[in-house]
Amino acid sequence: MVTLQGEASDPANQNWLPCANVTITNPLITDSSNLILRLEMGDPKLFVPYWKMMSDKCSVVIEGWKFMSHESDASNVCQYLLPELGDAIKRIHSLVHNAAIQDKHIIVGTGSTQLFHAAWFALSSSDSVRPINIVSAAPFYSLYLDGVKALRSGLYQWAGDAATYDKDEPYIEMVTSQNNPVVRSASQGKLIHDFAYYWPQYTPITHHADHDLMLFTFSKCTGHAGSRIGWAIVKDIEVAKKMVHFIQVSTIGVSKESQIRAAKILGVVCDSYQSLGPKESEHFFDYGKRLLRERWDRMRQVIGQCEVFTVAKPSSAYCNFTKESFETNSAFAWVKCEGGIEDCGTYLKNLGILARPGRLFGVGPEFARISMLSTNDEFDELLTRLLNARREYN
Amino acid sequence: MVTLQGEASDPANQNWLPCANVTITNPLITDSSNLILRLEMGDPKLFVPYWKMMSDKCSVVIEGWKFMSHESDASNVCQYLLPELGDAIKRIHSLVHNAAIQDKHIIVGTGSTQLFHAAWFALSSSDSVRPINIVSAAPFYSLYLDGVKALRSGLYQWAGDAATYDKDEPYIEMVTSQNNPVVRSASQGKLIHDFAYYWPQYTPITHHADHDLMLFTFSKCTGHAGSRIGWAIVKDIEVAKKMVHFIQVSTIGVSKESQIRAAKILGVVCDSYQSLGPKESEHFFDYGKRLLRERWDRMRQVIGQCEVFTVAKPSSAYCNFTKESFETNSAFAWVKCEGGIEDCGTYLKNLGILARPGRLFGVGPEFARISMLSTNDEFDELLTRLLNARREYN
Repeated sequence: MVTLQGEASDPANQNWLPCANVTITNPLITDSSNLILRLEMGDPKLFVPYWKMMSDKCSVVIEGWKFMSHESDASNVCQYLLPELGDAIKRIHSLVHNAAIQDKHIIVGTGSTQLFHAAWFALSSSDSVRPINIVSAAPFYSLYLDGVKALRSGLYQWAGDAATYDKDEPYIEMVTSQNNPVVRSASQGKLIHDFAYYWPQYTPITHHADHDLMLFTFSKCTGHAGSRIGWAIVKDIEVAKKMVHFIQVSTIGVSKESQIRAAKILGVVCDSYQSLGPKESEHFFDYGKRLLRERWDRMRQVIGQCEVFTVAKPSSAYCNFTKESFETNSAFAWVKCEGGIEDCGTYLKNLGILARPGRLFGVGPEFARISMLSTNDEFDELLTRLLNARREYN
Repeated sequence: MVTLQGEASDPANQNWLPCANVTITNPLITDSSNLILRLEMGDPKLFVPYWKMMSDKCSVVIEGWKFMSHESDASNVCQYLLPELGDAIKRIHSLVHNAAIQDKHIIVGTGSTQLFHAAWFALSSSDSVRPINIVSAAPFYSLYLDGVKALRSGLYQWAGDAATYDKDEPYIEMVTSQNNPVVRSASQGKLIHDFAYYWPQYTPITHHADHDLMLFTFSKCTGHAGSRIGWAIVKDIEVAKKMVHFIQVSTIGVSKESQIRAAKILGVVCDSYQSLGPKESEHFFDYGKRLLRERWDRMRQVIGQCEVFTVAKPSSAYCNFTKESFETNSAFAWVKCEGGIEDCGTYLKNLGILARPGRLFGVGPEFARISMLSTNDEFDELLTRLLNARREYN
């Protein structure tokens, strides 16, 4: 019973902590952009201090004449994949044991965002007269909806919440939570498992995931969002080839500089765990898990004190990687405004907190998503502002 | 009368050198992949030796904690553009004087490929019930056609050769040649100028281009194709915003590592020309122009000798950058098989040369496109193989 993708399992079905009604009057902080705490995105800034600490081990030097070709290995299905990155991806999965990679194809993308577009392309049929439906259980990742709607593809279309999908026709389902895969029909549904957050700092590693098409991202694994590196682990070579074709016609491959740097940093994480010498510093996933645990403890304390919001009770499970049970440390807090507050996003904005409103994720306006991955200063300020809601109430 | 985009002005309308008929029998080189010279892509490998020579000036060092956020400057229309790259792009255009950039918006993409997709998205209307037509004068860049056809967008569709387009409805035209912009109607047509090859190693810089939407790519400017960095110079802020939106939903920005490296290398090119000290080595554009000139001289000599193929006579113009007149050194040779040879691509393949066939560019099968940007060894081998056609003929 763990939660991936940071989207928490459906908050509407969770136990929410009781909270008193409030009336919004005279917001304490005005909606001025220089005062707003921008926590609507998931930029994982909280890991920066770790990588500063590890700086001497992680630097990459790229000479002027290196990586000039857009190809890497013409014999690979993914011709533009640097072998160094392919090896590092195999190594990190072998360390964490979160995904079965043997006899599968690694397809690198410009972030996992490009890869879910590529996967939709690969799993739809160019012969079909009707676009295939894409569904995902709410609260789904808002960029699935934004991506499908903006691009107006003739190959696929958005069909909403997987929980309410009842059409007797083929569909693609984006599965983001282990405990909530609303699989309608094995014969008609093609599943894409978005495992962005299936790393031990966020959630217990309960099993060695082995699905047809799994997505991971460097951004959430180590916090290097600026590199725009994601990877898909794909079983069927024809699907893999179609994904590569999509990436070729969209961007002719993926930045080599980002690939070599991702290879280096994933390698440093593996080295740290596999080193036989004395432990020089805390290992990355342990560091990340401790930091997120501390943040969640403080967050729950403040939410409990402020009596305006509730957050879902986290699930707990035994983690095969850390060899202990722990509660999920979601990358995002799904907060719910209680009582008379109808629009949680607007209420938070009046407190100076920019969150992403629930409606973008297919849930009600009483919900909003707040990033838990901000800098330490931003996180401290978030807690102060959430407490302002209590002062306002009293 | 210069040619950009390497696609040469329409070969069907050019003067072709006379060539005798040949009969293909018993090809000298079999179609075995390890013997095939792959010259169907435009990977600019010929510039690698220059960047090896400049290696000590061009290295970038990226520490583990740098560039972790996918944003750069929230106040910029292009939030993910690194200011260092924006400055370098302004500087290189100011040096070469090939594009008017003042009061325009710089939008960075994962190669110019992502940018022409973004431009199509931005120039089409999400309200329109019918997709807008995209045209380009043949021989157009084959990836325009591949990109439009593969993705099956509901926003735009391929409408073929601009020269034969006669519909009285809105369209987007990809303009790749200065001497052949088949502009149908100023009121209905939206132009995208693809200036991939408007740099002084390829073509005389005849004017300071000043259009609504111009595309450039690091790949062809300096030869760093592996970085996947392109930039658009956009006049209208609403178009710029829509392009950024496209890139956000497609890849959430562009690799920071590639951006900082592109900034460094463009800076080194500018430094070299603007240095007041003694000239330490040949400047990049001079080096590239000399190399391409030498290749074209040898190529024409071989084509003349082999009597099987023809190539178009290049145009010549005064270059404001180099302060001299010179003939265009196209990045690709458009070769035409003469006499009884109907399929130039297959004929070349039988000689062990993989070229891209004319039909992919909207011209006849008697044409094929061969990259002039290969390594020195590959180029020498190309000439040897072209001469084989003569031996076969004799």
